[in-house]
Amino acid sequence: MVTVNENFLKLQAGYLFSEIGRRIRAFKAKNPDAGIISLGIGDVTQPLAPAVIEAMHKAVDEMSKEETFRGYDDNHIGYEFLRKAISENDFKPRGMKIDIDEIFISDGAKCDTANIQEIFGTDNIVAVTDPVYPVYVDTNVIAGRTGPANKNGQYEKIVYMPCTAENNFVPALPDEPVDLIYLCFPNNPTGAVATADQLKQWVDYARQKNAIILFDAAYESFIADPDIPHSIYEIDGAKDVAIEFRSFSKTAGFTGVRCAFTVVPKQLKAYKKDGTAVDINSLWHRRLSTKFNGVSYVTQVAAAAVYTPQGKKQCRRIIDIYMANAKLIRESLTKLGYEVYGAVNAPYIWMKTPDALSSWDFFDRLLQKANVIGTPGAGFGPSGEGYFRLTAFAKPEDVKEAMQRFAAI
Amino acid sequence: MVTVNENFLKLQAGYLFSEIGRRIRAFKAKNPDAGIISLGIGDVTQPLAPAVIEAMHKAVDEMSKEETFRGYDDNHIGYEFLRKAISENDFKPRGMKIDIDEIFISDGAKCDTANIQEIFGTDNIVAVTDPVYPVYVDTNVIAGRTGPANKNGQYEKIVYMPCTAENNFVPALPDEPVDLIYLCFPNNPTGAVATADQLKQWVDYARQKNAIILFDAAYESFIADPDIPHSIYEIDGAKDVAIEFRSFSKTAGFTGVRCAFTVVPKQLKAYKKDGTAVDINSLWHRRLSTKFNGVSYVTQVAAAAVYTPQGKKQCRRIIDIYMANAKLIRESLTKLGYEVYGAVNAPYIWMKTPDALSSWDFFDRLLQKANVIGTPGAGFGPSGEGYFRLTAFAKPEDVKEAMQRFAAI
Repeated sequence: MVTVNENFLKLQAGYLFSEIGRRIRAFKAKNPDAGIISLGIGDVTQPLAPAVIEAMHKAVDEMSKEETFRGYDDNHIGYEFLRKAISENDFKPRGMKIDIDEIFISDGAKCDTANIQEIFGTDNIVAVTDPVYPVYVDTNVIAGRTGPANKNGQYEKIVYMPCTAENNFVPALPDEPVDLIYLCFPNNPTGAVATADQLKQWVDYARQKNAIILFDAAYESFIADPDIPHSIYEIDGAKDVAIEFRSFSKTAGFTGVRCAFTVVPKQLKAYKKDGTAVDINSLWHRRLSTKFNGVSYVTQVAAAAVYTPQGKKQCRRIIDIYMANAKLIRESLTKLGYEVYGAVNAPYIWMKTPDALSSWDFFDRLLQKANVIGTPGAGFGPSGEGYFRLTAFAKPEDVKEAMQRFAAI
Repeated sequence: MVTVNENFLKLQAGYLFSEIGRRIRAFKAKNPDAGIISLGIGDVTQPLAPAVIEAMHKAVDEMSKEETFRGYDDNHIGYEFLRKAISENDFKPRGMKIDIDEIFISDGAKCDTANIQEIFGTDNIVAVTDPVYPVYVDTNVIAGRTGPANKNGQYEKIVYMPCTAENNFVPALPDEPVDLIYLCFPNNPTGAVATADQLKQWVDYARQKNAIILFDAAYESFIADPDIPHSIYEIDGAKDVAIEFRSFSKTAGFTGVRCAFTVVPKQLKAYKKDGTAVDINSLWHRRLSTKFNGVSYVTQVAAAAVYTPQGKKQCRRIIDIYMANAKLIRESLTKLGYEVYGAVNAPYIWMKTPDALSSWDFFDRLLQKANVIGTPGAGFGPSGEGYFRLTAFAKPEDVKEAMQRFAAI
């Protein structure tokens, strides 16, 4: 008799955004003419940069001719031209030496942050922030690193680190021992950032405890403050204890193009139960060459174009549009008396719900009364209850309109 | 202390094709001027069909304008336009009713056949053919469904079903109980096909034993014989017990474009340990929405173009080129006295090595003497020892040249 992976059955309801999608579809079915504005799921709206478009057309043409056609990306970890561009543009200028063999190209940071846990033992204790991007948790549930969920939706064996206004949404070091620590700065959903000192505490902790930090830096290009680190590798010693995830999704509007990368330093080790050190870079390479077959050539060429002088300028302009959105939301809501966080070094706005409403109730109110979609904070964990996430990725005119509607409810 | 998934350490050497890659690089380093011809890895050489190229350019242009830009593929399982085209073109004309909610678009059949096991319990007994596409086995090793490998490279707890000239490379039903059965027809690596009667035996077996068949049909478009089923769903009752994998990689030359799909019938069930039936379609959906973020829009548009009248004609022409290669290889090698299988309904040629050479020895001899690359049968399992795989995907002029070199060794 074929059995299922019963860990799947521990998962709460649907994946957060699927649940939101269901509620929106239900609302639309009843209100087909409502002009819904989404500040909900973190999807971008600006078209791809012209330099990216041009590169994609060129790559498509290459695929049309025998002499320039490309099949499999041989080593499954990405073309050298892209890994070199990443090393030289994302890391070198900020003083980090990341070898191209430490960079693994993928089809998305969601996939990478979801898959990374597969190379680690199921006995590891996982630490996540609360609120948290659900993928970190759900994938560990599926893999069997947790017990069942309690009534708050938190899983046994996972160590949750509350992030609230009190600690500026940067978690304190855990009291109990943990092995795999998921951190995301600039943070999704709170928009918080971590200073170099704060990150150093985590790196020191991981070094001391033989833990590994899984650092999600998907939103680093939104950092405006020159003192905030863009990468965990800006911290001394981090290459011994951290894996970093980056994405072109928000940086270059690639949510529908699908490209990201993971940095796994060659010196990074985890351990067999008997204490023998094992090289993590080659384990991740093995995982990719067994379960993955590389990213579309056209997509990789598109990603490389992000690093050309034109590409950089154009992508910067797009980010500026989103950050102007973030500023408008922050200022408008503050003026309306809401308590607002994030939105300065991140494309996320984290607001307190008004009238002590639950975050799903506020979701429904906003959808019904203003036809505006956001994301209920509770969807990211119990400490997100009473909060609500807005994203800065909508079209500027829609953001303006949404702010007017906020004023009217 | 952070631990590794020690199952990774059970894996034999490198992934087969990585090992071949290493040997080729070593040869090239010593013989930089050798004109190597690869009939090895199953990578295609013909450029994309003009209808596909045209569709990709159009899709890239859509990504350049705000009005037509596409971000995330909302439900993570593929655009409806593509799933509809698949349902209506791949299944309906052959009398199968596959609903679009049973079709899940992905970035490759390798990924799908690698990931599918995640939704099943680790206690399932896995059956594979020997020889076998290594991904089926390695991913189950990583997941912990096996013990260590023996000196033949076979893992404890996996049930291997030998496929040899004696059984026409179609395995007999296993004597011991099995739960998850990987079948691939047309077969990689042997090029064998299964008749409707043979598939019916398997479907009946799975129905009787509450097992699930994981049917890899990535090469179905190479079937020439009108009596050979293209899909397991051509067999009555298969929708109750089978998942099917398809790919655009070989059908339309998408190895560098990355698109495939998996069919998971809504009626398909697996079981909790207590015997409760669980819906597999929604489990797979949940897996995808948690660990995957959809396929590039441009790629999905490209895949849909394969089903246009022009696209079909053009892709057919490309397949005909490869099948002419297969015929030439089969006839040339037969004339030279080699024992040759496959190559009629499949792009793979499975040959006996001459002079009782081991398959890796023949690999080395062919590389050294003819500068031709093939794949050692032993890389696919012990029953592949003494066999050698050639693929039909090279350029016709290279295949001709390779056959002349074969004649000379």
